[in-house]
Amino acid sequence: MTQLEYAKKGIVTKVMKKLALQENVTVEFLMNGIASGKIVILFNKKHKKIQPIAIGEGLRVKINANIGSSSDQETVASVIEKVNKVIECKSDTLMDLSIIGDLDKLRKTVIENCSLPVGSCPVYQVFGEAIQNKKSFSKIPKEKFLEVIEKHAQDGISFMGLHCALTLEGIKKIGERLTGIVSRGGGLMYCWMRFNRKENPLFTEFDTILKILKKYDIVLDISDCLRPGCLYDANDEAHIFEMMVVGNLVKRALACGVSVMAEGPGHMPFDQIDYSIKLQKKLNHFVPLYMLGPLVIDAAPGFDHIVSTIGATAAGYAGADFLCVVTPSEHLGLPDLKDLENGIYAMRTAGLAIDTARKNKQALEQNNNISLARFKLDWPKQAKYSICNKEVRDDLEKRTKGRSCSMCGKFCPMKINSKFNK
Amino acid sequence: MTQLEYAKKGIVTKVMKKLALQENVTVEFLMNGIASGKIVILFNKKHKKIQPIAIGEGLRVKINANIGSSSDQETVASVIEKVNKVIECKSDTLMDLSIIGDLDKLRKTVIENCSLPVGSCPVYQVFGEAIQNKKSFSKIPKEKFLEVIEKHAQDGISFMGLHCALTLEGIKKIGERLTGIVSRGGGLMYCWMRFNRKENPLFTEFDTILKILKKYDIVLDISDCLRPGCLYDANDEAHIFEMMVVGNLVKRALACGVSVMAEGPGHMPFDQIDYSIKLQKKLNHFVPLYMLGPLVIDAAPGFDHIVSTIGATAAGYAGADFLCVVTPSEHLGLPDLKDLENGIYAMRTAGLAIDTARKNKQALEQNNNISLARFKLDWPKQAKYSICNKEVRDDLEKRTKGRSCSMCGKFCPMKINSKFNK
Repeated sequence: MTQLEYAKKGIVTKVMKKLALQENVTVEFLMNGIASGKIVILFNKKHKKIQPIAIGEGLRVKINANIGSSSDQETVASVIEKVNKVIECKSDTLMDLSIIGDLDKLRKTVIENCSLPVGSCPVYQVFGEAIQNKKSFSKIPKEKFLEVIEKHAQDGISFMGLHCALTLEGIKKIGERLTGIVSRGGGLMYCWMRFNRKENPLFTEFDTILKILKKYDIVLDISDCLRPGCLYDANDEAHIFEMMVVGNLVKRALACGVSVMAEGPGHMPFDQIDYSIKLQKKLNHFVPLYMLGPLVIDAAPGFDHIVSTIGATAAGYAGADFLCVVTPSEHLGLPDLKDLENGIYAMRTAGLAIDTARKNKQALEQNNNISLARFKLDWPKQAKYSICNKEVRDDLEKRTKGRSCSMCGKFCPMKINSKFNK
Repeated sequence: MTQLEYAKKGIVTKVMKKLALQENVTVEFLMNGIASGKIVILFNKKHKKIQPIAIGEGLRVKINANIGSSSDQETVASVIEKVNKVIECKSDTLMDLSIIGDLDKLRKTVIENCSLPVGSCPVYQVFGEAIQNKKSFSKIPKEKFLEVIEKHAQDGISFMGLHCALTLEGIKKIGERLTGIVSRGGGLMYCWMRFNRKENPLFTEFDTILKILKKYDIVLDISDCLRPGCLYDANDEAHIFEMMVVGNLVKRALACGVSVMAEGPGHMPFDQIDYSIKLQKKLNHFVPLYMLGPLVIDAAPGFDHIVSTIGATAAGYAGADFLCVVTPSEHLGLPDLKDLENGIYAMRTAGLAIDTARKNKQALEQNNNISLARFKLDWPKQAKYSICNKEVRDDLEKRTKGRSCSMCGKFCPMKINSKFNK
């Protein structure tokens, strides 16, 4: 039985107890959330080292960081380096989006070296291997997709980005777009559909896929293949049509006992985020919403880690639950370790901003604790409550308590205040 | 006559014509905006090199960057370096917040080397010199404040942050706060008031100050001495009380023919920004609102340039007009050149995000232009429409048109799309 099935029956599992404690909610709240589809648990038992987490309404917002090969340059060693970086910077989950090289080996390496739940996009392997073996997309049978999905499940993947909502009907709606399809997996699936003049096999074989996911209790993450790739395309017909397809798939998954998440855009102007996210939550039956951005402007390559935190915070306040890290190298190239670090810290600020705005008790306390430490010029205590990186932490920890910083120097208002208000 | 007085009489000035063109609005719109107080023009004729700008409702959001000495380390040469950096990174204005050293010389150097309108906080000079000369605050007569204000005006300062809204009544309301007063000028003024057991001289002598500002047509920027310095203090009694005091001063300034801006917080959780900014606009009679942040979390020292863009975007969409750059070294120390650069670019992304959300035509076009260039893998054109820094610009300009980036490599969805959709 899956956690969803246990929850539906009102049975509290060991992992539910553990996660309720971790999230500072009651077991009943968590169980009811899982039963209704509003909360998912990432926990594939095949992943030995895994520390399971819960995502969804009423819980702390979670962060995911992507790693993986896009060219031959990525080695097993460099992948391990990135896994370690992701853990060091305190992302909640990690996705292995490798598409080139020995994909089975890379994936197993990631899972073995990682205590965070790991996600993947199986179609990357299907298409990546076909291209590496110079095999035409028309020679890829639909069974291949199912086979790769099962392989990922067996290896210990906890959530799968599956491109099952792209349909022939949806494709018809991208003609007016400025940037068409910007999902990598969506683009490849589009190719397969055009080459083979057939409906998406992940859509037609959806019931079979659900059976595999159910067997391993894997969370289905329905990829948004038609997410807007620029502000102009946001909330257009293609985007909203796909939301509805996703909604139907969500219902089928939940009915089958498979927990499911939906994915959000992409690129979206700030003024459209609130209604779009609320609509998506509604159309997708309030399952957890996993955000890619949204980027609130298109015009700042090199600063997209910042641009994405703006959109993610607004989206989170409107209902998104799970934030994907965007690095400074988005739209420029594959991120290096420093990019990954900058991206994770930026998105963690958005996560805390959302938790704070939603009045999460732990988040409010964290902010108050650092503020009081700041007022008292207690630098080591500021380090304790900060989400700062190693560099800033080291700096804070070695500062003398009671000494003001160089911004105001001897004109420090905190110092002046405390002189009069003991 | 001031620009405000001309506008009230329905007289179009040369600078109004120039700025209407620059902002892509009609001269009537600009003139009416100035007449109602909703728009201000920064333009002190004593500043020879000045390129005037307009700030307010219906116009493109503007950015200000702060520079200035806080210790003896800052030299004339290092100040010039910072002025050049601010211009290179395309801030719209600059404030010289020097508080130590030869302040007259520093200020004149900044103005001489800068084509952007320059702002200042005269009380920094009053108190900074007293401290440098080991003179007790009780020995500073109220005339000293007026004298320094006039000196700044004569030198060519276009907008002055004046701490005139801090009152004995307001001070009574900070007792429940976590971080009291965090405005540097506010803290110093508080000291003066406590030492002398007297009301704020900038408040009691407000009419005389208005006369000076009017003579040089300087925009009054009413500093928010009681802005919240942490999330906990946001929208408390002290904060809202000061907003009302500001509102009264705004009315008196406008009646006298002096253009005026108000200042926003500080620190504020994301969920409180929308109503707070709308309330402030209302209480402050819709004059332009100059934002310091707001920082939506307290707990990310080293990342406050990012945290501030989140709050600034929400505030701008709710009505703020003018954004102050926050650097990564906020709460840590005086920013260096790289911090300044990172802060300016971060805040420029927020500025464009707001303009886009407000459907500013030029902003929408900029986003669409870069998106189309991105779809066509036209890298030099992406550089043209980006607000990226020199490093990213150089990188983009030398990339070959039509080649995909290393993120997706040969699996680039843009490439796949265009194959099928010529």
